[in-house]
Amino acid sequence: MAGQRTTLAEIAVQADTSVATVSKVLNGRPGVSEAQRDRINELLDATGYRRRGVAPRAPVSLIDVVVRGIDSQWSNQILMGAEEEAARVGVSIVVTVTHGQSLGSRRWLSMLAKRHTDGLVLVVSRLSQGVDRELAKLRIPYVCVDPIGTAPAGVPVIGATNFAGGLSATEHLTQLGHRRIGIITGDADLECSLERLDGYRAALGRAGIVPDDALVRFGNFQASGGYEGARSLLALEPRPTAIFAGSDLQASGVYQAAAELGLRIPEDLSVVGFDDVPLCGWVTPKLTTVHQPIDEMARQATRLLLGLAYRGSQPPESKLELATSLVLRDSTAPPPA
Amino acid sequence: MAGQRTTLAEIAVQADTSVATVSKVLNGRPGVSEAQRDRINELLDATGYRRRGVAPRAPVSLIDVVVRGIDSQWSNQILMGAEEEAARVGVSIVVTVTHGQSLGSRRWLSMLAKRHTDGLVLVVSRLSQGVDRELAKLRIPYVCVDPIGTAPAGVPVIGATNFAGGLSATEHLTQLGHRRIGIITGDADLECSLERLDGYRAALGRAGIVPDDALVRFGNFQASGGYEGARSLLALEPRPTAIFAGSDLQASGVYQAAAELGLRIPEDLSVVGFDDVPLCGWVTPKLTTVHQPIDEMARQATRLLLGLAYRGSQPPESKLELATSLVLRDSTAPPPA
Repeated sequence: MAGQRTTLAEIAVQADTSVATVSKVLNGRPGVSEAQRDRINELLDATGYRRRGVAPRAPVSLIDVVVRGIDSQWSNQILMGAEEEAARVGVSIVVTVTHGQSLGSRRWLSMLAKRHTDGLVLVVSRLSQGVDRELAKLRIPYVCVDPIGTAPAGVPVIGATNFAGGLSATEHLTQLGHRRIGIITGDADLECSLERLDGYRAALGRAGIVPDDALVRFGNFQASGGYEGARSLLALEPRPTAIFAGSDLQASGVYQAAAELGLRIPEDLSVVGFDDVPLCGWVTPKLTTVHQPIDEMARQATRLLLGLAYRGSQPPESKLELATSLVLRDSTAPPPA
Repeated sequence: MAGQRTTLAEIAVQADTSVATVSKVLNGRPGVSEAQRDRINELLDATGYRRRGVAPRAPVSLIDVVVRGIDSQWSNQILMGAEEEAARVGVSIVVTVTHGQSLGSRRWLSMLAKRHTDGLVLVVSRLSQGVDRELAKLRIPYVCVDPIGTAPAGVPVIGATNFAGGLSATEHLTQLGHRRIGIITGDADLECSLERLDGYRAALGRAGIVPDDALVRFGNFQASGGYEGARSLLALEPRPTAIFAGSDLQASGVYQAAAELGLRIPEDLSVVGFDDVPLCGWVTPKLTTVHQPIDEMARQATRLLLGLAYRGSQPPESKLELATSLVLRDSTAPPPA
């Protein structure tokens, strides 16, 4: 990054001020006009300078984990991983639920400003340029797990190898002999949804099958998303003989749709999920799925954030993808003759 | 309570000091020796005086929710309820996981003292007298949800009507004609486990069945607890024809044990759960269970705490039990002929 080589002197030149003033802003000291402070903060952010150093505000031993909901085993594992990692160094986590609203409401930002936090782990969050700037003003470092859309440059992103996961799930089905394979993936604005779809298409290509968009459904990662996608896919003629669901919860919705149609799993319909949450062992038959190291993603994200917040470390790379792997259970079989 | 009538003057007399000094301690002002502060704090706690007023420390708009784990749909609903209720008034929640350790480690208390919190919702926590005193010293109000053991006097406790829930679950089974009904309840040190067992025994009594301790199992509220309890119960001769599980997760473990033994639900074995978490709809057959208003328990607990922390309100009563109700699904039937 160009920003790595930027010095305070260069920023001072660009802001038409002194190094001492830039230093004041960087260290949160008074004696700088609001307008100038804003200008210098913008330059510090734009050049990536800020990420070199720790925010000098006294740490409060709190970090925020921002999630869309706390209603799934996926989010459980995120919170568990983050909490354990933070607790190891005596840091507590604040859990904020966005309920699908975009981040950066005035209220949320003013709450953050009021009570302070040493950093944020943003999980499946959409980050506008505006929020990025506001957080920089507040001197709050952050990392993203599976962001919606593209994270601002220089912000660490933690994810899983979604492409490889989608590929291995679909290859497993093509190797069993399936040719007509439906996919239900997550919302189209999630990078991870698209990557899994890419992996699915790649596996079809490798097996010499032309991808058919009529077999693709997008939906929420809940059971309802899987149920609706499966009802729609299973109404096609000819019916797909296998469905790759973008989450285990969605797969449970596929099970429900199949049961309603009198289809047996795996005899009439093979199902593969994604995530590998405990639910896989609770459904009958047990669900073959792509294991995603969810708690490890949360751990890595938290560890990275703790480094940024308390040790002024640099993120080693801007995107980190943890490996996925296929876990074979009882929900897949060769297609019916 | 006698404490309600205690005045600062009486405390001053007991501490052999002036009302002004007692007032200083009550309001967190300096100028009192550590020994005298401790003594006065103890008297304030012992008389219950403290609970009348708000802690005068500047609020940080944070409350802590302390849970044993974040690994279940039960804890999901607790966190969701607490978060929503707190967010309504701009308060954030810190989630602390005890991992089954008892509260009140030096480390935890010093963390609380360092970063401040406006109050605690303690979920399934054991509270020693020592911790109670420490929290009083730190001026941190708290409420308990389903405590382990007995909560200190004057501390609000929120629970569900566990006795009535155990009664209705078991009566449903006796009304179907079951006479040999096993129960797997939670750990014996949980008040809610014992109350459900009491309800079970009461229902047997009402049906003219003599309770048989050989049909009672204690275990953790996880799937593993249910699995182990069911393996042991289903090895009995004659085999019970129905099992009342203390949680839906335990019930899923009963399903697993039944499947291994080739027993069909509900034809060979009826199963009733407790909680009514989404899992009930994911298992086959869908689980008949006792609905527990978990998120409402968390909401009520949080609302009560917010009152104590920010408005200096008194808890209306020391124990609040929210109603449970039986939800009929597909896992029960008359016993096999």
